[in-house]
Amino acid sequence: MEIKTNNGVCAPKGFYANGLHCGIRKNKNKYDLSLIYSNTLCVAASMYTQNKVKGAPILVSQEHLHNDHAQAIIINSGNANTCNSDGYEVAKQMCDLCANELRLNTEDVLVASTGVIGQKLNIEPIAKHIKPLIDTMSRDKSLAAMEGIMTTDTLPKMATVSFTIDGTICTLGAMAKGSGMIHPNMATMLAFVTSDVNIQVDLLKEALREVVDATFNMISVDGDTSTNDMITILCNGQANNTLIRAKDENYTIFKDALYQIAKHLSLMIAKDGEGATKLLRCVVNHARSLHDARNIAKSVIASSLVKSAMFGCDANWGRILCAIGYSDAQYNPETIDVTFKSEIGEIQVCQSSQGLVFDEDIALQILQTNEIYILIDLHDGTYSSESYGCDLTYDYVKINGDYRT
Amino acid sequence: MEIKTNNGVCAPKGFYANGLHCGIRKNKNKYDLSLIYSNTLCVAASMYTQNKVKGAPILVSQEHLHNDHAQAIIINSGNANTCNSDGYEVAKQMCDLCANELRLNTEDVLVASTGVIGQKLNIEPIAKHIKPLIDTMSRDKSLAAMEGIMTTDTLPKMATVSFTIDGTICTLGAMAKGSGMIHPNMATMLAFVTSDVNIQVDLLKEALREVVDATFNMISVDGDTSTNDMITILCNGQANNTLIRAKDENYTIFKDALYQIAKHLSLMIAKDGEGATKLLRCVVNHARSLHDARNIAKSVIASSLVKSAMFGCDANWGRILCAIGYSDAQYNPETIDVTFKSEIGEIQVCQSSQGLVFDEDIALQILQTNEIYILIDLHDGTYSSESYGCDLTYDYVKINGDYRT
Repeated sequence: MEIKTNNGVCAPKGFYANGLHCGIRKNKNKYDLSLIYSNTLCVAASMYTQNKVKGAPILVSQEHLHNDHAQAIIINSGNANTCNSDGYEVAKQMCDLCANELRLNTEDVLVASTGVIGQKLNIEPIAKHIKPLIDTMSRDKSLAAMEGIMTTDTLPKMATVSFTIDGTICTLGAMAKGSGMIHPNMATMLAFVTSDVNIQVDLLKEALREVVDATFNMISVDGDTSTNDMITILCNGQANNTLIRAKDENYTIFKDALYQIAKHLSLMIAKDGEGATKLLRCVVNHARSLHDARNIAKSVIASSLVKSAMFGCDANWGRILCAIGYSDAQYNPETIDVTFKSEIGEIQVCQSSQGLVFDEDIALQILQTNEIYILIDLHDGTYSSESYGCDLTYDYVKINGDYRT
Repeated sequence: MEIKTNNGVCAPKGFYANGLHCGIRKNKNKYDLSLIYSNTLCVAASMYTQNKVKGAPILVSQEHLHNDHAQAIIINSGNANTCNSDGYEVAKQMCDLCANELRLNTEDVLVASTGVIGQKLNIEPIAKHIKPLIDTMSRDKSLAAMEGIMTTDTLPKMATVSFTIDGTICTLGAMAKGSGMIHPNMATMLAFVTSDVNIQVDLLKEALREVVDATFNMISVDGDTSTNDMITILCNGQANNTLIRAKDENYTIFKDALYQIAKHLSLMIAKDGEGATKLLRCVVNHARSLHDARNIAKSVIASSLVKSAMFGCDANWGRILCAIGYSDAQYNPETIDVTFKSEIGEIQVCQSSQGLVFDEDIALQILQTNEIYILIDLHDGTYSSESYGCDLTYDYVKINGDYRT
């Protein structure tokens, strides 16, 4: 299965998209309103933030997805529409405007917002631009839709992958945004996946949950779980494959494709974390349980001290042992090996939880690359996990010292 | 009760201290070996890190404190003596050397180490300097002892307070180090408290636990819980007060004094967090339980986004609501008020979980001071809590990007 990145949500059959500047952001060169649309009704599944403070768009989308179907998603950036007294009404209005223009039921439109929390979202610029947004949507505007959801992201994050079910080619397309307030719990900041696959909605929900737990939920940029995290997948069935209705081989093929695309986007989000100069991947092997493997991988990737050390190319493995130690996981504290690895080689720095004498120059060379694996072998079981993150840099502080003003 | 900061562990009757450069650190101007000694046996209590990876000195001190008594503490900085194959033996040797010279039982000496993890601690420089350390200890060397335990700390952290038990004046003295890897769980990095109070050891333990939970355990500098956190209190009874043997008025007086001194040191540790320019104090009122109040206060103070916003003087209260939301606490998400306060005034920015229109200039002035209160009113119960932290700055990244090399 080959991941391609030159297309996104429009790649599967029947999907249209668009993005434009409507005026929520002051900078006219930045898009701030996006649309994803399928020309037939889709089965759909979402996962949302576990933050107890939830953005109004999350509440409206949850309501609208009660019937497991959707046909369009309207998304704005520049304002999270969260902690506003009129937030629910404004999110509902966004769906209404979109439904009217597309001649859909309001319940078949989902909504998402990303940006500053606690400033009222003015519906006027959105109302004014909903018609041109829909009039000019097309099957080749994946990138415009992507641009409309970016905030501090420096790179678009799109991917598509095709797979075959009983001889029929099916496609997944996706886009995601990330950058800051990234420590997802049940979903990432915003990710949208489209597909023409034909699948029962209960299986779709289960596949999404399993894949998200192994991918988006393993990212940490800054330990802050957002109020607006949301991932949605729309499947319109237009590939006309045999309906996936059981956990058979076809289900596995689909789930694997979804996993590949979700992992790809997760890596892109981690790599493009606010201020990041390096992608960090923490691989934990031989843990007692999947929970323990994930818990340790996430504890290490979220440690400010580990992240700062990676920024400074410092092979300070003691901080890794420390972060393993304060995780909630169960493990044998006497049998931990740690190795740093990158494209130019690898170097083991800790064996059986104790330091090895190692060549600091080689360690430095490995850590000076922009994609670093922290390999942890617990020698204590059969489970593995990988987490995705980035280094902590001056620019993270700079970006977040004056984000709002 | 007045806190004084011109003396530390030598303030109570019968306590001696010292600090010197023995050679663990390369910089000859930095002390790296300290001693605290009481001329009579003390009842003692300790709390240690909850990190599953524990420094060897922690294990040895736990062993030696099994009998609830101690008379001296030997401490080095520059090396944590953690994750070393010979760590236990070296920590034990430090106690032996000290005990021989002081003519004590080895079990009456406690040991602590702070510094880099995973590099072997050479006993030679310690062995060579144990005699001069003990020969020149005196009742006026609180500051020398303090200097011997500092790492990236920029300021000494000492305090004393006196209180009266049935007409007898008793004194508490203390010193602490902090700066990085500070997110204590059951104890802070290193803190040592001395007293001449006469108290039963079970009550001493209980008072220590309660006070630490309300003070040191409410600090977060960077979310990383150290492997070597430890607080120890030694009480030699030389004040000759009536023995505190029940939870009566005298116990309350002692516990309050201990609380005042612990709170003072906690604030100093937070203020002197690595790279910090500001002390942050998050006060949570009207929570459903003490657990909820503490959980929320700690979640807010540990948020990288809140910390970065404070560095940038940005009244970005949405990030505070977000950090409350991802805490484990139970609360009503509709009734939260947020106010920023400093010596020059206060400004409410959020009411009933929604934004208020506020004067950005006044907010900026308040946030430009170096001690900022984040006041959170949950309107949901009767419990309160306060947490202590600092802003996240370029210098934190700088200090931790090249700490080891």
